Amino acid sequence: MLRCVACGKEYSSKKSRQICRCGEPLEVEHIPGKIASGGTVWKRFRDFFPQEMKETDLRDLHTLSEGETPTIKVDELSEIYDVDLYLKNETVNPTWSFKDRGTVTSLIHASRLGAKTIGTVSTGNMASSVAAYGNRLGSKTVVLVPEDISDRKLEQIAAYDPLILKVAGDYGDLFYESLELSADDPEIYFSNSNSPYRIEGYKTLAFEIIEESSPDFVIIPTSSGGLFRGVMKGLIELKKSGILDKIPTPVSVQAAGCSPIVRAYQGGKKKIERWSEPGTEAGAIANPLPPGGNEVLRKLDEHDGLCTKVSDEEIMDAQNKIASEGIFCQPASAVGVAALKDLRENGSIEKGSEVITIITGSGLKNLRGKFDRQRVKHIDISELKEWYEEES
Amino acid sequence: MLRCVACGKEYSSKKSRQICRCGEPLEVEHIPGKIASGGTVWKRFRDFFPQEMKETDLRDLHTLSEGETPTIKVDELSEIYDVDLYLKNETVNPTWSFKDRGTVTSLIHASRLGAKTIGTVSTGNMASSVAAYGNRLGSKTVVLVPEDISDRKLEQIAAYDPLILKVAGDYGDLFYESLELSADDPEIYFSNSNSPYRIEGYKTLAFEIIEESSPDFVIIPTSSGGLFRGVMKGLIELKKSGILDKIPTPVSVQAAGCSPIVRAYQGGKKKIERWSEPGTEAGAIANPLPPGGNEVLRKLDEHDGLCTKVSDEEIMDAQNKIASEGIFCQPASAVGVAALKDLRENGSIEKGSEVITIITGSGLKNLRGKFDRQRVKHIDISELKEWYEEES
Repeated sequence: MLRCVACGKEYSSKKSRQICRCGEPLEVEHIPGKIASGGTVWKRFRDFFPQEMKETDLRDLHTLSEGETPTIKVDELSEIYDVDLYLKNETVNPTWSFKDRGTVTSLIHASRLGAKTIGTVSTGNMASSVAAYGNRLGSKTVVLVPEDISDRKLEQIAAYDPLILKVAGDYGDLFYESLELSADDPEIYFSNSNSPYRIEGYKTLAFEIIEESSPDFVIIPTSSGGLFRGVMKGLIELKKSGILDKIPTPVSVQAAGCSPIVRAYQGGKKKIERWSEPGTEAGAIANPLPPGGNEVLRKLDEHDGLCTKVSDEEIMDAQNKIASEGIFCQPASAVGVAALKDLRENGSIEKGSEVITIITGSGLKNLRGKFDRQRVKHIDISELKEWYEEES
Repeated sequence: MLRCVACGKEYSSKKSRQICRCGEPLEVEHIPGKIASGGTVWKRFRDFFPQEMKETDLRDLHTLSEGETPTIKVDELSEIYDVDLYLKNETVNPTWSFKDRGTVTSLIHASRLGAKTIGTVSTGNMASSVAAYGNRLGSKTVVLVPEDISDRKLEQIAAYDPLILKVAGDYGDLFYESLELSADDPEIYFSNSNSPYRIEGYKTLAFEIIEESSPDFVIIPTSSGGLFRGVMKGLIELKKSGILDKIPTPVSVQAAGCSPIVRAYQGGKKKIERWSEPGTEAGAIANPLPPGGNEVLRKLDEHDGLCTKVSDEEIMDAQNKIASEGIFCQPASAVGVAALKDLRENGSIEKGSEVITIITGSGLKNLRGKFDRQRVKHIDISELKEWYEEES
């Protein structure tokens, strides 16, 4: 059973509808469960998945081993911010972003409905992920991208050889139109952001986080709202199951150059409004009209969450700080660390708190051929010994 | 104790010398052991590591969770080649290549010797890996690169902010000179390819392969020879421990455009000679004078191995085939699959054999802004419904 998170209207999970007629996201009902021992997160937490997924052996579907990513304690950054900081490294997923966790559950749903083709509306991480998993599961795949997409982005999708449709027109509308077209007809199943079955996959992030740490705060880079919703649904189900005493404080962070959720939150609004001109280096989280935005606002309200934005300068500095711990991430993935300075200074996060943030995707996805040349020196091989002796 | 793989001369593991005075690689003595249950591959196979590493708690050194990568059975490719084919997906390591397994063991050795700075001679995967782990372990790092390195490659190293030295002169000589400079002085420890302590880390690949499959053939992309040596040392130690009945047939594959090991092998030579003009898209395995090359020849001889080369056209075709199973890899990583057609046709690998090949690094490392545009179509959003109905 699927239910609209806003108006409560119910829909069958045997249909391909993923968005309510009122425009708000659908969600699988809450599923409390028990944790089993052994195996991957998908097996240990099998009880928490909807019936239609429990009936599917995830291994039988030949997944690419998504999830089960490292939780890394970072001592130097912990010291800088006077907190116990953990990074959840999602850059080591099969297509190098957290999207894979939701793609696999979404495609299992598609497969159960008999979909022959998998589609998505995305220019980045989700597009690569859907194309990869479509290949793995033997589906045809189609990716709808805006006309002005860069070759650099297109290459990362084209590597998996999906059909790519460059669509002229409003890209935000395309998200809704593709879902409406396929709502009653599962032939082409669109696995877009905020799909209820993506949320089921993203829950595994909450499960792993709680197994490996005891955070007071979970900081989540927020774009369409899907990741935020998935982590929250997982935490809520753990609470309802008696496994978690208290849900950690959720923190939603956006890039200042496209922060419609933060603007609505700070203005005390219940609904987000379209961000007119997105402009940020953190392109992977620059959704001007996030379809899960209103739901993020509701969840922040229900759980006394925090919501803040960071500048591109802060993002780039945080990206370097994260690399100084050995993880090269996308700019979008650095917003959690970027937000820490202000959150500590204004007292939102107290000294000594345990904090985890999700490092959503690999820095290799945003190579630009640019870097700081100050650390590049030139020498001749004949000078090597001299250099060595000076340095030693 | 370290021993030269060619002349047998012994060296202390308490010194930083990693290459014999005769120019051939050193190796840690064979260590038979027992497998423990539970934990990561590093814990399960702890018995197989040299004493100086057993004394180090790998978790204490804050590794980034290298290794423990998925072994993926690929049904469509298995059918094409009439074998049971497995891909060992090393693209999901912390810096997205297999190098991380050897970097961590190498840096543990460096740390025990009291090295303050970690160096490497590399333009690619190893450079990123050493810079990342140097950061993680709190060491200063320096990467020696050739003068003509591209910005695209440099950016992936610079992301971790090491000191980068562009060295004018013969890059092959630099490998040996850097090791000689640091052989008796551990202040700056060079973690170059073929380091004996890298080999100890690469052994974990053999351990995981044997836990998850029962291959008749292990196909290994070969450049400097380090990966090949590591996998073989692991397999030999498993055999000596009574865990493995028979060592799978090793297959060394090089890109035709730089294949000094294949040339020596096919010519019945015991020693490789420098490849004069390397030219291949598989840049990550284009070492013109591989320091472990002679040792690869010896191991192929001892274990009735196979050694072959593939063209760039075959490599690119194999890269697409691997992506069709959901894994986007470097061109260099595709040589194993590329070699299958010939190996099957000439009878070297029999029908129905179990075969595993190592997918060494992520395709994101070699983005070129180029791709096949045949699969890119243009439509207007107003035509979406019509397109959908035609496709359904």
